[in-house]
Amino acid sequence: MEIESKNIIIDFEPISRRVFFSNDNSFYEILSELNIPIRSICGGLGTCGKCKILVQSGNKYLNPPTSAEKKVINETELENGWRLACETKINKNQILQLEKIKPPQFRIFLPNELLLEDFNILTTGLNKRVKFQSAIQKIYVEGKKPSLKEPDPDFERILTALFSAIPSLEMNKQLSIDFNILNSIPNILRENDHKITLTLWDNANIIACEPGNTTEENFGIAFDIGTTTIVGYLINLNNGKIYSVDSKLNSQTAFGEDLITRLTFINENKENLQKLNAAVINDLNDIILNTTSKANINPYQIYEATVVGNSVMHHIFLGLNPVNIGLSPFIPVIRRNLNVKARNLNLNISKNGNVYTAPLIAGFVGADTIGVILSSQIEKEKELTLAIDIGTNGEIIIGNRKILAVGSCAAGSALEGAHIKDGMRAAAGSIDTININPKNLEVSYTTIKNKKPIGICGSGLVDVTAEMLKSKIITRSGNFNQDIIDHERFIKKDNKKIEFILVKNEQTSLNKDITISQGDIRQIQLAKAAFYSGSRIIMKHLGKNLKIEQVYLAGAFGNYINAHNAKFIGMIPDISDNKIFQIGNAAGIGAQHCLLNKSIRNKAQLLLSKIQYVEIAVEKEFQKEYAEAMYFPHLNLDFFPSLTEYDDIPKR
Amino acid sequence: MEIESKNIIIDFEPISRRVFFSNDNSFYEILSELNIPIRSICGGLGTCGKCKILVQSGNKYLNPPTSAEKKVINETELENGWRLACETKINKNQILQLEKIKPPQFRIFLPNELLLEDFNILTTGLNKRVKFQSAIQKIYVEGKKPSLKEPDPDFERILTALFSAIPSLEMNKQLSIDFNILNSIPNILRENDHKITLTLWDNANIIACEPGNTTEENFGIAFDIGTTTIVGYLINLNNGKIYSVDSKLNSQTAFGEDLITRLTFINENKENLQKLNAAVINDLNDIILNTTSKANINPYQIYEATVVGNSVMHHIFLGLNPVNIGLSPFIPVIRRNLNVKARNLNLNISKNGNVYTAPLIAGFVGADTIGVILSSQIEKEKELTLAIDIGTNGEIIIGNRKILAVGSCAAGSALEGAHIKDGMRAAAGSIDTININPKNLEVSYTTIKNKKPIGICGSGLVDVTAEMLKSKIITRSGNFNQDIIDHERFIKKDNKKIEFILVKNEQTSLNKDITISQGDIRQIQLAKAAFYSGSRIIMKHLGKNLKIEQVYLAGAFGNYINAHNAKFIGMIPDISDNKIFQIGNAAGIGAQHCLLNKSIRNKAQLLLSKIQYVEIAVEKEFQKEYAEAMYFPHLNLDFFPSLTEYDDIPKR
Repeated sequence: MEIESKNIIIDFEPISRRVFFSNDNSFYEILSELNIPIRSICGGLGTCGKCKILVQSGNKYLNPPTSAEKKVINETELENGWRLACETKINKNQILQLEKIKPPQFRIFLPNELLLEDFNILTTGLNKRVKFQSAIQKIYVEGKKPSLKEPDPDFERILTALFSAIPSLEMNKQLSIDFNILNSIPNILRENDHKITLTLWDNANIIACEPGNTTEENFGIAFDIGTTTIVGYLINLNNGKIYSVDSKLNSQTAFGEDLITRLTFINENKENLQKLNAAVINDLNDIILNTTSKANINPYQIYEATVVGNSVMHHIFLGLNPVNIGLSPFIPVIRRNLNVKARNLNLNISKNGNVYTAPLIAGFVGADTIGVILSSQIEKEKELTLAIDIGTNGEIIIGNRKILAVGSCAAGSALEGAHIKDGMRAAAGSIDTININPKNLEVSYTTIKNKKPIGICGSGLVDVTAEMLKSKIITRSGNFNQDIIDHERFIKKDNKKIEFILVKNEQTSLNKDITISQGDIRQIQLAKAAFYSGSRIIMKHLGKNLKIEQVYLAGAFGNYINAHNAKFIGMIPDISDNKIFQIGNAAGIGAQHCLLNKSIRNKAQLLLSKIQYVEIAVEKEFQKEYAEAMYFPHLNLDFFPSLTEYDDIPKR
Repeated sequence: MEIESKNIIIDFEPISRRVFFSNDNSFYEILSELNIPIRSICGGLGTCGKCKILVQSGNKYLNPPTSAEKKVINETELENGWRLACETKINKNQILQLEKIKPPQFRIFLPNELLLEDFNILTTGLNKRVKFQSAIQKIYVEGKKPSLKEPDPDFERILTALFSAIPSLEMNKQLSIDFNILNSIPNILRENDHKITLTLWDNANIIACEPGNTTEENFGIAFDIGTTTIVGYLINLNNGKIYSVDSKLNSQTAFGEDLITRLTFINENKENLQKLNAAVINDLNDIILNTTSKANINPYQIYEATVVGNSVMHHIFLGLNPVNIGLSPFIPVIRRNLNVKARNLNLNISKNGNVYTAPLIAGFVGADTIGVILSSQIEKEKELTLAIDIGTNGEIIIGNRKILAVGSCAAGSALEGAHIKDGMRAAAGSIDTININPKNLEVSYTTIKNKKPIGICGSGLVDVTAEMLKSKIITRSGNFNQDIIDHERFIKKDNKKIEFILVKNEQTSLNKDITISQGDIRQIQLAKAAFYSGSRIIMKHLGKNLKIEQVYLAGAFGNYINAHNAKFIGMIPDISDNKIFQIGNAAGIGAQHCLLNKSIRNKAQLLLSKIQYVEIAVEKEFQKEYAEAMYFPHLNLDFFPSLTEYDDIPKR
């Protein structure tokens, strides 16, 4: 039996877009047809060398590198799978010759610099007010010139001037200077009429000396390192204002989409940790360059960086080996706050600049969760609050001013498009909101940037599930409703698998319908059940007669979904819609808060002793809770008394 | 007029031995005749390549490099003046051809590794008791293994074990770990049954983590970096005992004998500071290697080093530019205590080991003087004490429990043999004690290591001056006594200059008499007057009606001289001989004290505010005081009432 074209899969990463092989077009042409615009100056003629892609699997079924490619890609790169999109195509004859039974699967990585369309990376969010108290202070002093009568050494004369500017400093016996800048002082003083600007960290450590008065140029940067996306906020540390923001896809994606893949990669080879570390450091340095050039400042006048990220991202960023996080009992190297000199991390800010990493809570609940708590200030709430941060991993926080508990669930990736047949990340052309008319099952939808649709992103998936329920296309157990599967919106694939057509062939940029399969619904059920059962387990762990009174939805996904529909499918508890708040990139805002107010870092450390960590999957009731939560909205409808629509929706 | 051989000078450094050209022997042969044994395996046949010397001036009058030399010395080295002593000789014809009037002067540097005889470098001294309180603590802990019930991260589990071992540490919120060792913890724990030894600095900073129990191996090293000599003391930090001592000549001598020459050298070229820094760091690393191999320990189990040295040595050691110390108003870069990580200085001890440098007092009164004060504990004395540290530079300290003042005089080098015709450092074959029979002017003497004499070292110079006074060979103004210059012990050189023969030709290893010239006596007068007038100026500066009650003589020279004779020539005030104490290498012992007791470092810093620094040469009475002190023992005999011998000694 010959392998059929329609069974040959091409996955484009990191946008998680899957297509099937159809003709012998180049990858450049395939991407153009998908309406995914990529960088090219020559328009696909093979001359500009801009459309470089990384073939991560399927290399042997491609045409060999052309002379045009050999001109712009070196041998090592070619060996590693780098090609020009416009010169590379799939050779079906080669496939037929090499493979008899199993259809091949291609994985094509599109590097950051190739993608023209910005991804929808969430950078903003609810920003509770925080007192401004930077750890960085720049102080301009004019040193006294030395004489035989007053022959004080250079450093001591500067200190005298500094103490007369800020008398309270003199009490700090531990005031020190970074040794590597000490030797620059004599020349700065003598060449600049003894005028010098000192940068002081935490009232304790002189980390920079600059000639003249440079107090105006005083910056910090806050980073949120996600598994998939990275955001950086450049902040003026004289006034606390955000000067510019930049974000990009995490280049580590080239080595693995999710944390487990990356941990496996690190375990394979000693040098792989360095590769991932270099990838994330390069990303941060890119963001530093972009934000500073937007603000027209020198990167070396950034004196502090604060970082949040999940435990694995935290470790890789610091160059710490995270492999034990991936193995039971899931042990990080270190949990607490860390302050590390930028030079030790190769971060291109001031060489003695301080890099602060917020503390981790546990193996899979990281500094990003601390960031969410800090920015949402759950620990000050009177009402018991459930906060869920939905990224590639999901974290659940339940707390108020008295109690605080967290847990994690590996459930987010479905909602970023992984494992969903026509799923994709929130990017141009992805369907983000959906309505289904229950009478005729007509579908209306919107897409990001109003492009022709090419797939469905997370918020679209929540919508489509809720709408299919309301239209009784699916039952509470997630099955297609057998009563209506003869409707023209259904197609039968391979004579067996039924799919619901969301967008018809002719309306898409693809060569095919965009559909929802039974398998897709199962993935959504698994994801939403993980969140719901997770929060139930934590509530039971807290033990008392408690009730969730408000919900915070954090993260990009949490920000864009229809909150009511999230409740409707049973992802979050049944509370009034006006008590559900979408708080945006709360982790990133937590990083900003740490930068804006140094005492928040002590708070972060102190939170650790307050937080109860619940290892959800090992609690004995987990299996039962998880199974019950697979139903829409739940096996027990009593948990969702407000959703009266369910009275009409069949159970099985 | 032809240049005469006897006018052609050859100076061998760093031993400060001057000879005159006599025949066309190789330098190897000249050194052998001088009884200065140097390293050679082949015995001067040009085959072993061990007898490398550096020709610092006079290169153009030498035979060209031989084929034997080209085999063992590379081209760059040859260009820089490196030769084999056994293959190199002075070509007198070349001299006569190139020079008509001025006789050339050769300067030959003998590297440390060439000299076989140990120099008399003083390493011991008066050691006042000091409480043992090391900054370094090694603590063995057994970490708890992690579990799902107790999933604390690796570092936090170690801390828990540490806090249970030393509960007081838990109070220190600032307890930190050097970032570069954090990543080693997971493997150490898992490969060693969670048994680990932590090294803690100052109760605040974990600087090393070693597998298993290594608490026994806990060392520190104290360094005294002199202009000419360096001493290192390896000390066990579990019990405060000295394990081994090593010393060597400061390799910086190859770039200049004294501080001013080295400062000029640094000023010439940006890279020269690095050269001097590398030289001293190499010396310290050699001492580290020697002391640890004697004690059979690993250099990386030295966790702390303490360093004293004069201001220029302090700066060069730290890589700080010292040129402003050499220019009025003599400004160092920094004065205070410094703690620097060993890795930043390329010192081959534990990479995170702490290197402590004691504070400087002023431009030319450095951390070595602080070391003298700390070890002699002058600031606790009831009696007003004069301490003089006689090295290549001289420092004067006057103080007791109420007052403390210091000054410096550039007077020591004469007493190390410089500028003295037959002077040399205290090395094998140098005359160190002298007696002259006043009746017949017969001279008896001893030499170091009982070798045939080749020159006079500092203690010999003090003795010979006192003895010549007592025998009325010289007058109180330092002139040869005209009444007895017809004695057979006098010779007339060039029909004009009179010299006193100390050792006759046939008794020496040289080809000539060892003599004292009028010029030599002037040098001694200048040196002793500098010390005496310096202490007078400081006393006047203190102003009150004070009297010096005891004298401490520090430094190698101070240790070996006849203290009574030092008083007799008027170098120190007229106090009872039993109140003059020779306290040895007090600076080095000060470094030891800093290593043994961390609180002494605070004391060192606090001393700075107590010490009055007197810039002796700018005080207005200096010229007059200096001139009066040129007399033996002084112009005003009332200052030395106990020296009744002077009644008979002519004044002019």
